[in-house]
Amino acid sequence: VDEFGLIARLRAVLEAEEVSGPAEVVVGSGDDAAVTIPRGATATSVDALIEGVHFRRETFPLASVGRKALASALSDLAAMGAMPGEAYVQLGIPEDSTEADMDELARGLADCARLFGVRVLGGDVTRAPALMLAVTVVGHAPNAYDLVARSGAQPGDAVIVTGPLGGAAAGLLLLEEPHLAHDLSDGVVSALKYRQLKPTPLIEAGRTLAAAGATAMIDISDGLGADAGHIAEASDVQLTIELEKLPVVKGVADVAAAANRDVLELAAAGGEDYELLATVPREAAQDAVGRLEQAGGTPAVIGQVEAGSGLSLVDREGALRRDLRGFDQLGGSRSPGDRV
Amino acid sequence: VDEFGLIARLRAVLEAEEVSGPAEVVVGSGDDAAVTIPRGATATSVDALIEGVHFRRETFPLASVGRKALASALSDLAAMGAMPGEAYVQLGIPEDSTEADMDELARGLADCARLFGVRVLGGDVTRAPALMLAVTVVGHAPNAYDLVARSGAQPGDAVIVTGPLGGAAAGLLLLEEPHLAHDLSDGVVSALKYRQLKPTPLIEAGRTLAAAGATAMIDISDGLGADAGHIAEASDVQLTIELEKLPVVKGVADVAAAANRDVLELAAAGGEDYELLATVPREAAQDAVGRLEQAGGTPAVIGQVEAGSGLSLVDREGALRRDLRGFDQLGGSRSPGDRV
Repeated sequence: VDEFGLIARLRAVLEAEEVSGPAEVVVGSGDDAAVTIPRGATATSVDALIEGVHFRRETFPLASVGRKALASALSDLAAMGAMPGEAYVQLGIPEDSTEADMDELARGLADCARLFGVRVLGGDVTRAPALMLAVTVVGHAPNAYDLVARSGAQPGDAVIVTGPLGGAAAGLLLLEEPHLAHDLSDGVVSALKYRQLKPTPLIEAGRTLAAAGATAMIDISDGLGADAGHIAEASDVQLTIELEKLPVVKGVADVAAAANRDVLELAAAGGEDYELLATVPREAAQDAVGRLEQAGGTPAVIGQVEAGSGLSLVDREGALRRDLRGFDQLGGSRSPGDRV
Repeated sequence: VDEFGLIARLRAVLEAEEVSGPAEVVVGSGDDAAVTIPRGATATSVDALIEGVHFRRETFPLASVGRKALASALSDLAAMGAMPGEAYVQLGIPEDSTEADMDELARGLADCARLFGVRVLGGDVTRAPALMLAVTVVGHAPNAYDLVARSGAQPGDAVIVTGPLGGAAAGLLLLEEPHLAHDLSDGVVSALKYRQLKPTPLIEAGRTLAAAGATAMIDISDGLGADAGHIAEASDVQLTIELEKLPVVKGVADVAAAANRDVLELAAAGGEDYELLATVPREAAQDAVGRLEQAGGTPAVIGQVEAGSGLSLVDREGALRRDLRGFDQLGGSRSPGDRV
């Protein structure tokens, strides 16, 4: 496969369906740079998926790789409460890739772009020792103060998670060790693998939380423990999370038992669920939860913000669980890396 | 080296010196996304450098890798006539990298950012099987029509190159095969290696050409033959380039002779010189050349645009040189890939 041929094929797949974004696009893909006229404020984030680090080709279909690379980048925009606009994709392709492989990868990317109204305005294709996708996404909001950073959590705020955790970690275990599926129904196994292979950026939930007055927000990519720690640090507050209130995806407890692991390890340290974690003024918390439920979500208030600094993950017995704060505890995969 | 530690170190190096950009920065690095308020039009481009594909660590100091990754991305903004604003860096780090390695890499990046007034607003750090840097740059202009795409060349336009070619290709040969330096002065050898290791994005030349009425512009990263072909295709015109008019970097002819290669192969197919190639209405060509010379450049008119479609590289005898149109003819390195 020669490079210029590949570029042309990818462009054809990605440009097949144009969707309108919130920035006017003057020059699209195929030039030295894409030219847009943004209105208001922009939120920009980058994320990378690398073969052997974030996925293995043996267990990840290439369409899922393409889709997840864009989805995990969009999840960062969700965590700002931004509307997705444009994406730029850098692709590193190993020698043994076929045109059919690249078509499948591009299809996954294009599916995700279409689903979220994202325009892929440019990219870069090169050889690489392993398959790699580096994605840049640009989101929009009318004003900068419509966007939610990590740093605004205030003592007294409630801590809300948008949905159940542990599914992506359990799904990864099932992909890597199929025998763990032994006592589970096919439906549960599929649903858990789906959480790992096809994460959904919670764009609407992010905008709902922003509109409900969220003071800080982050997507749970590295694991609840790590990401809650990021809010605590950036906001210079103390976050206390009551682990018994944590919603857990159906079937995760069974996978944890079969794998001889603590279910909380999958739910709080596994990562890659791409649910959102937000702090909301206490008086606005019920309203925020209500709005998320109305939109079909299953949010939960799982803790509170206090004066101080640091993070406490407290179990049913009131004991601190320090072991749940790291990421990459599964060893097999690792969420797309954190920001510089 | 643990990932969160590395992220903190890189952030420290990159944030040590803040420079102001043309977009207001509301949220900088360290959040889910950077928040900016752009004014006017933005030009966005991505570029990647991958170990073993674009450089070898044996011949490329890590500071040069960091610097070149950003410089080659900025060169795409130069080719639009844009003012550089913000950058986002995705870093893939192999297991054997030390903290000192990463500091050196970050210093190279930071040096280049400072030199061109670029703010590094975010990034992503992850493990990778080989060192890789994927850079996204955002440039600015008051209006979209101030920016120059590849597609506007018109029959009658003159073709201008901003400076001499072949230096980067000769420099690469000298890095890979040091014995070729045998009959050259140390000064010439250093200057040629410098062209390969420390390319300069021609931001000012790009803005000068845009202001002088350039109708199409591209940076010469893949080689004159390939990049002139891109303008011809995007503009649907015929470009004729007279190879005898091509300015060639001092010493390139000697390196070519020592390596038993055609000097034109290095100058027209070698790539990575990051000079700009522009088409300018014939009546404006002398003015454009004069402005570039005043700014210290050594530009040359090397051809013209005609009705038709395609590219002709014509040598002294008037013969077509079809062999100079591909890129990657050196085998050893390859310019950062082309756009999707």
